[in-house]
Amino acid sequence: MSISFHLMKEDGDARLGKIKTKRGEIDTPAFMPVGTLATVKGLTNEQIINTSSQIILCNTYHLCIRPGVERIHRVGGLHKFMNCNLPILTDSGGFQVMSLSKNTKIIEDGVYFNSHVDGKKIFLSPEISIDIQKKLNSDIVMVFDECPKYSKNKKLIQKSTDLSLRWACRSKKEFGTNNDKFLFGIVQGGIFNDLRIDNLKKLLDISFDGYAIGGLAVGESQLEMFKTLDCLKNYLPKNKPHYLMGTGTPGDILGAVMRGIDMFDCVLPTRSGRTGLAYTWNGKINLRNAKYANDDSVLDENVNCPASRNYSKNYLNHLVNTNEILASTLLTWHNIAFYQDLMSKIRYNISIKNFDNFYKKNFKILNN
Amino acid sequence: MSISFHLMKEDGDARLGKIKTKRGEIDTPAFMPVGTLATVKGLTNEQIINTSSQIILCNTYHLCIRPGVERIHRVGGLHKFMNCNLPILTDSGGFQVMSLSKNTKIIEDGVYFNSHVDGKKIFLSPEISIDIQKKLNSDIVMVFDECPKYSKNKKLIQKSTDLSLRWACRSKKEFGTNNDKFLFGIVQGGIFNDLRIDNLKKLLDISFDGYAIGGLAVGESQLEMFKTLDCLKNYLPKNKPHYLMGTGTPGDILGAVMRGIDMFDCVLPTRSGRTGLAYTWNGKINLRNAKYANDDSVLDENVNCPASRNYSKNYLNHLVNTNEILASTLLTWHNIAFYQDLMSKIRYNISIKNFDNFYKKNFKILNN
Repeated sequence: MSISFHLMKEDGDARLGKIKTKRGEIDTPAFMPVGTLATVKGLTNEQIINTSSQIILCNTYHLCIRPGVERIHRVGGLHKFMNCNLPILTDSGGFQVMSLSKNTKIIEDGVYFNSHVDGKKIFLSPEISIDIQKKLNSDIVMVFDECPKYSKNKKLIQKSTDLSLRWACRSKKEFGTNNDKFLFGIVQGGIFNDLRIDNLKKLLDISFDGYAIGGLAVGESQLEMFKTLDCLKNYLPKNKPHYLMGTGTPGDILGAVMRGIDMFDCVLPTRSGRTGLAYTWNGKINLRNAKYANDDSVLDENVNCPASRNYSKNYLNHLVNTNEILASTLLTWHNIAFYQDLMSKIRYNISIKNFDNFYKKNFKILNN
Repeated sequence: MSISFHLMKEDGDARLGKIKTKRGEIDTPAFMPVGTLATVKGLTNEQIINTSSQIILCNTYHLCIRPGVERIHRVGGLHKFMNCNLPILTDSGGFQVMSLSKNTKIIEDGVYFNSHVDGKKIFLSPEISIDIQKKLNSDIVMVFDECPKYSKNKKLIQKSTDLSLRWACRSKKEFGTNNDKFLFGIVQGGIFNDLRIDNLKKLLDISFDGYAIGGLAVGESQLEMFKTLDCLKNYLPKNKPHYLMGTGTPGDILGAVMRGIDMFDCVLPTRSGRTGLAYTWNGKINLRNAKYANDDSVLDENVNCPASRNYSKNYLNHLVNTNEILASTLLTWHNIAFYQDLMSKIRYNISIKNFDNFYKKNFKILNN
């Protein structure tokens, strides 16, 4: 087997682990920067690697619209297309069909929708999504799911979860056997604990290389999200990675690690960077604020990244206010580096069985 | 003396030289990337250094509007403000007063104008411009000149050139004696050879550390520009650097080096990069063109830069078409690297007395 997951240590429910892929190892808990359109917005691959990121995420939905799968498949997949040697996880498109597309029509076979870019009619099914992900040649492949919007209507969520389960079965069948790639199942069930647990048990019966928790970060409160994780933590298998999709703030991550999560992805550090926001160990700051014109201190000297240590808030305020590209680059670079610094310190504190203290010391400051 | 210029070799009128500044040496002929607002748009300092650039240019006019001189002066100047250890040349603002500002009113003492950003009334004079450049702490300071628009009205150009000469005198007086910085005079006179030569002779009487040719790249043809350089080349002092301001295309540079020019600056490689254009040894290409969707070759494997060698035209076409920041970064990075590769090959060919052949081999291809 060229791929594996090893659970190295537990500290309460927090877990220290290592995912081995054909293209490199990923220390968990891990944060995956989002590279939607085959680029982590604003950063070169050299800068991404400089942040100690060990894996990135790309989006099947976006890439099948632009540039289209064939231009990526032709050169051997995403790694070659975007010149990135890091492992890549591709999502299946289910979440974006829900959040971005128009005129969505779900049938048993799959989902019809109109592209959010040009309105073009597209059809995705478990088989098509897995086939696309094979062509993208990602290292971690996600099953195609139906991701419902946040809802308190249990019947609706039940129906959707059942469909996702049948699609998970078909995704696994289409994926087949491949010792070089992971296939992750996605737990659905909204904010209903019984549906979540039931769904997870059925996914375990199918058997996947990892288990993602989907259908969160769709509008529920942090408390609801944490409750869902609490209900699942005793059912998630210890010997497989646990991935919370689309999350989150530094506070969300701390709370989720506390509840047994190993993997995260989120657009927050990149998107916030492009709007002048920086995550620091003293909390989130807005570089657009006029007070930073008089602040010659660097962004965060605790983070080991050129963008964090070499430029003053005075300078960054100037770049943000003049809409310079370098503002987006430096703040995105810093934010990803901060997230990776957070993950590194989380891993260290689990390794010395000090996660609870670390959590208590930082949760309030970082959960803003 | 901590600063100097050495003429190392001549090949026809082409010159190989070395400028020594307090912050580093500059091999000439040299190209200076433009960092208008204290950032070379789209690039980090690490990337600029990676292109082998040895000096950058910043704009007095823009910086005195945003962020204002005091925020830069407070930290010790531009190098510290923007975290750049390369030597910096600052222009004096004369050109931008002509090209950007509104309600310009020129009097003997200086020029009143409205900021192009917020309409604020500003006054610049030789004394104020030099004082600002001292506060910016640049390594090469330019005299404050009146830069007229392109005109065939000789009387008007004569009047303007005379004023610029009196301002050059006042600039020199304000600059005083400083063994750590260069002060360059600027030759004006439009497309009138006799005015140009007369102006240059009078500037030589004042005596500067270098001589720039201003008032070009304002709408005249390449032929007119070359004719102006032809008329000046025998009067420019051999032991001082010759700087052609605001120029130009690779073809312009080849033709100007042929006519004795040592230094160049231009926004073309940066600005073109942001619009999807790439300069290569096979000429200029537009990555937005649909044909590049099917072209998996790299941008220019002859240029020693990650942006030139590691990404396919297929990928760059995708980035340009999706307006990704990385498109601007990679194409700007490549274009500056290409310009520096051009300068490096120009210097090499002068050093082996082969510039004429090099010019003949490349001028037509690069002059597009």
